[in-house]
Amino acid sequence: MINEQYKKMLEGKSIIRQLSEFATDRGRQIGYENVFDYSLGNPSVPVPEKFTEVMKELLETRSSMELHGYSPSLGIVSVKEKIADSLNRRFGMNYTGNHIFPTTGAAGAVAHALRCVTSAGDEVLTFAPYFPEYNLYVNMTGARLKVVPANTWNFQINFEKLEEMLTRQVAALLINTPNNPSGAVYSAETLKELSALLERKQKEYGHDIFLISDEPYREIVFDGVEAPYVSKFYDNTLSCYSYSKSLSLPGERIGYVAANPRCRDAELISAICGQISRGIGHNCPPSIIQLAVAEVVDETSDMAVYETNMNLLYDELTSLGFTCVKPGGTFYIFPKALEADEEAFCRKALAYDLVLVPSGSFGMPGYFRMAYCIDTEKVKRSLPALRRFVEENYQ
Amino acid sequence: MINEQYKKMLEGKSIIRQLSEFATDRGRQIGYENVFDYSLGNPSVPVPEKFTEVMKELLETRSSMELHGYSPSLGIVSVKEKIADSLNRRFGMNYTGNHIFPTTGAAGAVAHALRCVTSAGDEVLTFAPYFPEYNLYVNMTGARLKVVPANTWNFQINFEKLEEMLTRQVAALLINTPNNPSGAVYSAETLKELSALLERKQKEYGHDIFLISDEPYREIVFDGVEAPYVSKFYDNTLSCYSYSKSLSLPGERIGYVAANPRCRDAELISAICGQISRGIGHNCPPSIIQLAVAEVVDETSDMAVYETNMNLLYDELTSLGFTCVKPGGTFYIFPKALEADEEAFCRKALAYDLVLVPSGSFGMPGYFRMAYCIDTEKVKRSLPALRRFVEENYQ
Repeated sequence: MINEQYKKMLEGKSIIRQLSEFATDRGRQIGYENVFDYSLGNPSVPVPEKFTEVMKELLETRSSMELHGYSPSLGIVSVKEKIADSLNRRFGMNYTGNHIFPTTGAAGAVAHALRCVTSAGDEVLTFAPYFPEYNLYVNMTGARLKVVPANTWNFQINFEKLEEMLTRQVAALLINTPNNPSGAVYSAETLKELSALLERKQKEYGHDIFLISDEPYREIVFDGVEAPYVSKFYDNTLSCYSYSKSLSLPGERIGYVAANPRCRDAELISAICGQISRGIGHNCPPSIIQLAVAEVVDETSDMAVYETNMNLLYDELTSLGFTCVKPGGTFYIFPKALEADEEAFCRKALAYDLVLVPSGSFGMPGYFRMAYCIDTEKVKRSLPALRRFVEENYQ
Repeated sequence: MINEQYKKMLEGKSIIRQLSEFATDRGRQIGYENVFDYSLGNPSVPVPEKFTEVMKELLETRSSMELHGYSPSLGIVSVKEKIADSLNRRFGMNYTGNHIFPTTGAAGAVAHALRCVTSAGDEVLTFAPYFPEYNLYVNMTGARLKVVPANTWNFQINFEKLEEMLTRQVAALLINTPNNPSGAVYSAETLKELSALLERKQKEYGHDIFLISDEPYREIVFDGVEAPYVSKFYDNTLSCYSYSKSLSLPGERIGYVAANPRCRDAELISAICGQISRGIGHNCPPSIIQLAVAEVVDETSDMAVYETNMNLLYDELTSLGFTCVKPGGTFYIFPKALEADEEAFCRKALAYDLVLVPSGSFGMPGYFRMAYCIDTEKVKRSLPALRRFVEENYQ
């Protein structure tokens, strides 16, 4: 019999998808270059050339049985070691390959990490504004997601609210820095305070509280901003990474869970993820992608365009009177809408071919998100439309 | 807090893995070419050359943003259409792309199909001998797996036992033809009788009973045997496929769920799988692999070696007095052990560097499995060892 719970999930059509469909339809009418589509977080720069070269070399030089054969169920050992070495070199950690569990992107990583450290009925805390898919990842484990309200002036952690909500039922916190949708980067001070609070609560409650750190934007930080490595601050940290953004290959679904070597059962986390993976039929990421990415772990695509776009948008938005925290990274910006009903605001923007995402699904009404992973030339062309939209509707 | 249920799963170390480790260790001592390793189902023939060519062409001709960008969450439309067309052409079905949900191999396919058509507390029936991973796929949905005993003289379905166990609690049957580990192929008669029984029980109970057909060995059938297409016989069928065996690329994790266009909610199955996928962080298979496989959907690797090996082994085993159903396909054979304790039997074989898998984990004690996806030359060299093993221990 069809599972009614999953079937019911189909009813809530994602607003981002609806917007994206609008953009595609409108593009057919007026040319997609004239639709200022700020809806989707699809990287807009090419993969590093070396990735393509390595892929071709693997196809030309390896025996196909070796290249395309089953990888070990916990991932290819040499790949895990290269990832560990890179993290150790860059962030002063001491991972071994055994602490790394390769996954299909950050989605796979976060979903595995959550299952690993929660049980049915547990609570997981995250922080507004947050990536809407967290609801699904958490709900499907049987745990419950609760959302800590934001400090709206800087999108760092609201510790007063956090302490209130950090009850004995909380098994894990799920953070995302640099943040989708706000672009905020947690400072070293924030992470120190968070760590101290979690240490204190672990003692008080007598059980572990894990920090699941979702970091697909770790490599996209802007001038003058430093993105501290979360796991350096708190032992019970599982870092969840994806190469989607840093290498511009979101379709290839490759990322990992990295268990802090000092966390509870550190040597078992990979193996536990492996058991979870067997049951849900996730399995390893594809072998050729594992092998190719391992050769470019220290590279990134040329992502300068994101900062250029951010500065153009930030300057225009603030000059138009928007309240807006300046992003420290990612390719998102999250200004306050000019009316309380952010859906009405975004609907009105469509008349100017501006596709903006209303903030409701990010757990925080009254704002909107712009994903500026598009050509700078298009960002520039969108600014007069943005100005007209504001002037004709809100002045 | 670490999830104790998953942690506990680590205790039961897989016997296949232990055997495989023995084979590797022994290989270090005497050379792996002298270990007659029949433990693992890893294809031993190369991928079709065209697959490699298509991969290289994609890397050379497509823009990297297009090639490696996010695929739609339900899979790349053109890929799904090519898969549907191929199935329609070959099996007289009438799938559209919408009925196809690309997954990471058959594991992903079976796990999604199970979640799609069961709810917590439901029963799922499978048939001995069966692939041990079914336990995990079913358990993690909250449903319960029950095993229908085998007809040991031909490994077709034991309908008397099946009807007894097919209670109102059963939401789905999980079959695997051609079968791992027995090599048996369900005949058209078997499938007709199964379909008639399921139709009758659906009416009696007033609810759907889905047939989940796990078919990774569909393309590996031997001379004189026909593998009927299961979904032709019963409307409520979800076919689960993997290209791992037919294209020899198990490491690339690519397969699909194909929903019979006449099954309940046929137009929604893909979308429901998509929701499941979001929650467990499975997502699509990688875009480049989807695109490449779509160009070789009608091809297979040259798999003649499997039949050659099967005949060599079958002849030797029967001449040595083993009771053994002749496989109709796959690269497995499943003879009766020469003593009741199949683990003792397999342990004794190790002294002859014969790595055989005892049948306990396949839900049927007293047998052993040989995976003959190895070089024919090695199969030939193993025969004298097999003879010595039998003569010195059982004659």
